[in-house]
Amino acid sequence: MTTLDALDTPFVALDLDAMERNLKRAQAYFDGVGLAVRPHIKTHKIPEIAALQVELGARGITCQKLGEAEIMADGGLDDILLTYNVVGQAKLDRLATLARRVRMTVVADGPEVVDGLSDAMARAGIALSVLVECDTGSHRCGVADADAVVALAQRIEGSPSLAFGGLMTYPPRDRIAATRAWFEAALSALDAAGLSRGVVSVGGTPDMYRAGELGVSTEHRPGTYVYSDRYMVAHGIGTFNDCALTIVSTVVSRAAEDRGIIDAGSKTLSSDPMGLEGHGMLREVPRARLVGLSEEHGHLDLSDCAERPRVGDRVTIVPNHACAVSNLHDEIVAHRGGHVERVFRVAARGKVR
Amino acid sequence: MTTLDALDTPFVALDLDAMERNLKRAQAYFDGVGLAVRPHIKTHKIPEIAALQVELGARGITCQKLGEAEIMADGGLDDILLTYNVVGQAKLDRLATLARRVRMTVVADGPEVVDGLSDAMARAGIALSVLVECDTGSHRCGVADADAVVALAQRIEGSPSLAFGGLMTYPPRDRIAATRAWFEAALSALDAAGLSRGVVSVGGTPDMYRAGELGVSTEHRPGTYVYSDRYMVAHGIGTFNDCALTIVSTVVSRAAEDRGIIDAGSKTLSSDPMGLEGHGMLREVPRARLVGLSEEHGHLDLSDCAERPRVGDRVTIVPNHACAVSNLHDEIVAHRGGHVERVFRVAARGKVR
Repeated sequence: MTTLDALDTPFVALDLDAMERNLKRAQAYFDGVGLAVRPHIKTHKIPEIAALQVELGARGITCQKLGEAEIMADGGLDDILLTYNVVGQAKLDRLATLARRVRMTVVADGPEVVDGLSDAMARAGIALSVLVECDTGSHRCGVADADAVVALAQRIEGSPSLAFGGLMTYPPRDRIAATRAWFEAALSALDAAGLSRGVVSVGGTPDMYRAGELGVSTEHRPGTYVYSDRYMVAHGIGTFNDCALTIVSTVVSRAAEDRGIIDAGSKTLSSDPMGLEGHGMLREVPRARLVGLSEEHGHLDLSDCAERPRVGDRVTIVPNHACAVSNLHDEIVAHRGGHVERVFRVAARGKVR
Repeated sequence: MTTLDALDTPFVALDLDAMERNLKRAQAYFDGVGLAVRPHIKTHKIPEIAALQVELGARGITCQKLGEAEIMADGGLDDILLTYNVVGQAKLDRLATLARRVRMTVVADGPEVVDGLSDAMARAGIALSVLVECDTGSHRCGVADADAVVALAQRIEGSPSLAFGGLMTYPPRDRIAATRAWFEAALSALDAAGLSRGVVSVGGTPDMYRAGELGVSTEHRPGTYVYSDRYMVAHGIGTFNDCALTIVSTVVSRAAEDRGIIDAGSKTLSSDPMGLEGHGMLREVPRARLVGLSEEHGHLDLSDCAERPRVGDRVTIVPNHACAVSNLHDEIVAHRGGHVERVFRVAARGKVR
């Protein structure tokens, strides 16, 4: 059996045991608090892993791009929430085609979006469920308040081809009470208007293990939890042992006593800073600091290291942001304890439309 | 003929007229100062564009990864400088295979690298030219001083399978006098040691139009000049009209009066900040500020805009860092004045090894 040691660097390695632990722990938590899990596939972009998430108990999946949803449908996933406004005729036509194949749910945060969906689905003879995206404090997409929720839900219900399916948000971090209050007002307003509440879908890994405290949600859409990363560890979500995705890299230069260069730079690790100091953690040399990234060079400061890696030595990097790493690579090597089990194609990578 | 307006967003557009102007202006400059041009293909990763650079007068090309060089050789490029230490048996074997097909030159900045090259080329029966990489102030790779240049050049010359081919650096910005002094010392030391000087290869777009001032170099390796980007404009290298690479995007949300969301985030534009404020310039709405990027959302602050784009409107973004954009996309759409001429496959994208 091939081992990771036999593979040339840099490459992305996925520890299947760690990933499965992450998935099972999360599923057990959500089962315990009575919330459905609808994982966001943005983190892995791999249909086989999405299928595993469903097999372990997820209700369905979440995608951010229509092209991702198409790849996932090709891979057998049949219940997909697209948490992104679908705008423009080309995408509306593709959405209609996809909605004939699998159960699609979409979102909207404004009348233009609802009207586009309404016309396209009417033309295609499709009935589509639409959630109202809510701005509960992230200030990205989403309607601003309970009145706007009701107005948009009524517009959706007023379309013969659309059905109001509930509420969706990407919440601000650490503001559970405020998010709860936002939703309670919205749900009361829906009740008063005689509209059924439908699902309340909330996202994000950082507050995932507090999802039960929210009280008003019906499902959660974690993404990064499948792999975890240095950002999650820095924010108290698990430990480095839970980080299933790593980049295996080689030291290619030791031009000075206190410096080293590895063969993974911003084009391999991404330059997402995530508010962290340094660009990753080196498992074999945790006191080495990955202080900078050129496109193909990772810059190590070794001044705090008693033992310093030599040219040709390998290092295993826990990246700052696992989702950004997936987006850069065509394949990842899945292993258990260093023994390669399979190579996954990152099939939905690059599906920007 | 298809126009850009007919294509769904987001996509990467390449203005062929602007690109050709960039290439011809640079070639004319380097011809004028008597320097060879060896473009770095990291910016475009497209063999057809590399071939155009050679057709317009470039001496050969530069690659950073062996996988890029293999793709370029497949595309007919036959004179390739790999400005990266080749470390490890797998890559050394691939280098030997490649060196049988095309003229390869490599670099080294330490004895382990030279010895690896020496053994592998001896086994393969290949004679390889090796440049000594010099740390003229960037503190990335490279030997530290003139004595180290001579020692490594002698080690190269001492190998039956290798030949010392000269010096290479990625120089620090705006430090032309210091770089000149560094090289003058190294060249004198080579003379004193009875070693021939060979080429002196210098890189970078920002100082490109001052390359003639250096006096000691024989070739220049510009990368970004082919496309240019917002970083180059911010540093006085041309204007926004010279920026040949753009991302065409659609406004998908206007959830608030002073905010908008476009369908291009960090997975489309990259999150390379490049020390700039904001993540790109919007041609149609230059007063809109692209203040933040989620993975698939670009966050617009529209508070300074008299006319604000609506949901469904298109915007053309000049990215902060063109090289990082190329690295995210499988294809780019080449046009003249908005009329699509062809679609390039970014063939060397993802070749991380």
